[in-house]
Amino acid sequence: MSTVTLLTDFGMADAYVAEMKGVILSLAANATLIDASHDIPAHDIRAGAWVLGQYWSKYPTGTVHVAVVDPGVGTDRAALLVEADDQFILAPDNGLLTWALREARHVRLAVLKPDVHRPGEVSATFHGRDVFAYAAGLLAGGRANAGQLADPVNEITVPLWGMVQAAPDRITGEIVHIDRFGNLITNISRHQVVEMKWREYVAQTGLLTSIAVRRTYGEVAQGELLALYGASDMLEIAVSAGSAAKQTGLTRGAAVTVRKRE
Amino acid sequence: MSTVTLLTDFGMADAYVAEMKGVILSLAANATLIDASHDIPAHDIRAGAWVLGQYWSKYPTGTVHVAVVDPGVGTDRAALLVEADDQFILAPDNGLLTWALREARHVRLAVLKPDVHRPGEVSATFHGRDVFAYAAGLLAGGRANAGQLADPVNEITVPLWGMVQAAPDRITGEIVHIDRFGNLITNISRHQVVEMKWREYVAQTGLLTSIAVRRTYGEVAQGELLALYGASDMLEIAVSAGSAAKQTGLTRGAAVTVRKRE
Amino acid sequence: MSTVTLLTDFGMADAYVAEMKGVILSLAANATLIDASHDIPAHDIRAGAWVLGQYWSKYPTGTVHVAVVDPGVGTDRAALLVEADDQFILAPDNGLLTWALREARHVRLAVLKPDVHRPGEVSATFHGRDVFAYAAGLLAGGRANAGQLADPVNEITVPLWGMVQAAPDRITGEIVHIDRFGNLITNISRHQVVEMKWREYVAQTGLLTSIAVRRTYGEVAQGELLALYGASDMLEIAVSAGSAAKQTGLTRGAAVTVRKRE
Repeated sequence: MSTVTLLTDFGMADAYVAEMKGVILSLAANATLIDASHDIPAHDIRAGAWVLGQYWSKYPTGTVHVAVVDPGVGTDRAALLVEADDQFILAPDNGLLTWALREARHVRLAVLKPDVHRPGEVSATFHGRDVFAYAAGLLAGGRANAGQLADPVNEITVPLWGMVQAAPDRITGEIVHIDRFGNLITNISRHQVVEMKWREYVAQTGLLTSIAVRRTYGEVAQGELLALYGASDMLEIAVSAGSAAKQTGLTRGAAVTVRKRE
Repeated sequence: MSTVTLLTDFGMADAYVAEMKGVILSLAANATLIDASHDIPAHDIRAGAWVLGQYWSKYPTGTVHVAVVDPGVGTDRAALLVEADDQFILAPDNGLLTWALREARHVRLAVLKPDVHRPGEVSATFHGRDVFAYAAGLLAGGRANAGQLADPVNEITVPLWGMVQAAPDRITGEIVHIDRFGNLITNISRHQVVEMKWREYVAQTGLLTSIAVRRTYGEVAQGELLALYGASDMLEIAVSAGSAAKQTGLTRGAAVTVRKRE
Repeated sequence: MSTVTLLTDFGMADAYVAEMKGVILSLAANATLIDASHDIPAHDIRAGAWVLGQYWSKYPTGTVHVAVVDPGVGTDRAALLVEADDQFILAPDNGLLTWALREARHVRLAVLKPDVHRPGEVSATFHGRDVFAYAAGLLAGGRANAGQLADPVNEITVPLWGMVQAAPDRITGEIVHIDRFGNLITNISRHQVVEMKWREYVAQTGLLTSIAVRRTYGEVAQGELLALYGASDMLEIAVSAGSAAKQTGLTRGAAVTVRKRE
C-alpha cells in the first residue's frame, strides 16, 4: 500500500483537490492519500517550495509526493518526476523543488513523457488533475514505474532563493518563511552557526541589532523578542506568546545576520 | 475497501466533521475517508452543488459520497440516497445534487427510510452525523445495501439553476461559481459552443462586450482579461496572473453571453 | 489497521501537520490518518479541549487521538498518554483533555517516559512531531504498548472551565464554544435540565431575559433568536438562518441561565 501526499495552492472551497484525489484513487484504489497542504497562497511558488522542503523527507520509502503550485500551467514548462532518496516527487518545473532537493542525498531528475496524461484532451488549466494526479495514480497503483513515465534530464529550475553568505565574523541570510504563529524562519541553520565555533553570538535584522539566541520560548518574558532554532533546526525570530511578524513588521526576504559577539 | 468522500459547510474549526468521520469508521473500519471540501460557505447550497458536481464522477465504482449543506435540517426535507453510475450520493433533498445529476447516465432516486439513523434520539440539528454519516458507514462497511436503506422515489428537488438559453447567434448563461483564483466559471460548455459551428465568437458580460476566447492564460499579457474553457470544459472569464472577480466586480448569477462574430 | 486522529492549532499553510503525518506513517504504514481539526485558534487550549471533547468518543476501540495545542512546548509540562474507554489520547498536560475526560467511564492516566521521542535531539518547539506523533506511530504500528511508553500518574491538569451551578429554580452555566455558524454553545446539558422536572423554562443571558427553548431552527422565523439542544445535547443559543454571535455580541465565557417559568 503506497502513500501519496498532496500539496497545492487550490484551497478547499473548490473541487480541484477532490478531483485530483478521485483520479488517484481510480488508478490506485489502496493508496493512502495525505493532505499535506492546500493553503499555499495562490501562485506562491516560494511558500510551496518551503513547505514541501520541510515534510517530504519525513515520509516512508516509496511515497509519492504531488506538489502543484503552477502559475505557468498551459505554457511549455516541463512536468517533473524526481526520485529523491527512494521517494518520488511530481511537480511543475518552476522552482517548487528548491528546498526539497537541497536536502536529498540521491536524486534522479526526469521529465514526464508527453503522453502521460488522462485519456482524452488535457485541460489547459488543470494539469494537477490531468497530468500530476494521473501520473501519481499510475505510480502508486503499480501500473507503471518511474522509468516508463519519465525521461531523464540533467537540469531543472532551481532558483537561488535563500542562499547564505558566510564571513569569519558573520553569517547573512534572510527570512524564507513566516508561519501561522508569526515566527520569522530564516535560512540559517544551527549546523552552519555551530561550525563557526563562536563563543557567543547574536542575531540582528534591520534596526534590531541584538536579538539573543535562546533554546525555548519559555526563557524570555511573554511579549519579548528572541531567536531560537525551530522545528527544522533553522534560526527563527519569534516572540514568546506573540507574533514576531506583527511586532517587527518584517516580511519574507528581509535580511537576517548572525554575528559573533566580541 | 470502499471510499467515502465528505463535502460539508462545517469548516474544520469545530468538531462536526471529526464526529462524522468517527461514526463512519465505527461502522466501516477499512473505509478510505476523503475530505472533498468542508469550506463550502455556510448554508450555500449552490456552491456545494457546483463543487460536488465537479468531482463525484472522478471516483471509482462503489464510492459513497456524503454531501451535507443542510439549512433545512430538522424540518421534513427528505434525506436522499441516490445511485448514479455505480456510485452513491447521500445528501439532503434541497438541490445539492443539481449539478451531479445533470452529468450522470444512470440514476436511481431513493429516500432513506425513517429508521436509518444512529441508535437513540436523532439530533435535530446534526443529521450529517446521525443520519448521513451513519448511512454511509452502513453502506461502506457492507452492513446494508442501498435497497435496504432507502425507498425508491420518482422525483427530487432540482432547481433550475444555471439553465442555458441558445439562439442561432448567441448562447446566454450565467456565472455559476467563482473559484479561489477569482475565475468566473459559467454554465456554458465547450460542447455547446462547438455545436454552433460559428467561425469566430466572443464572450460578453455586462459592459464587457467583447472578451476574446483563448486556450491558455499564457496567450494574453499579465493582468489582461480573457475567456477560456477551464477544468470542467466550461467557459470561464479569467485574468492572467490576477483575479477576474476583483477586476470586473461580477458576482455569481451575472449573465454571460457567447455570440457569433460576424 | 488502526486509526490515528489529529487535532492541532497549526493550520494547514505550514509544514507542521504534514511532518507529523510523515512521522506516524513511517512507524505505522497501515494507519488510517484522520484530520480532526487543524483550525483551532493559535494557542487556544479551551477551543481545542472543547472540540476534542465532542469527537473522541465517536471513534472505534483502539483509536489513537493526538491533540497538540501546546503553548508551553519546551517547558517542563508533561506529555500525557491517557487511556479512555479503550481509546488513547496523546496530548500535553495543559487542560486539553478537560472535556474528553468528563465523559469517559474508564480512564488510565499516564505520562510519556522521557526517552519516548524521535531518535536524535528533540526540537524545543515541535513536540507535536518529535514526541506526540512519534508515540502515536509506535502505538498505532504495534511497536509498543501504552504500558511501555508511559508511566501511570494520579493527577493531570483539569481546569474548572465551564462548571455549572444548579439551584431549585435555575441552572447557571456559560458559553463554552462558538461554532462556525455563530451558535453559542453552553455547558448546560439537556440531561441536567430534564432532571429539574420543571413544567416550563426559558434561557436568559445578559439583557436577553427570556429566550424560548425550541426543538429545531424551523420553529421560529428567520432571523429570530432561540435556544435549542444542539449536536451534543448541550443548550445553545442560535438564530434561525443567522448568527447568534453576531446578533447578540456575546462571547465565550458569558453567563447563561436556564430558569423555571412560574
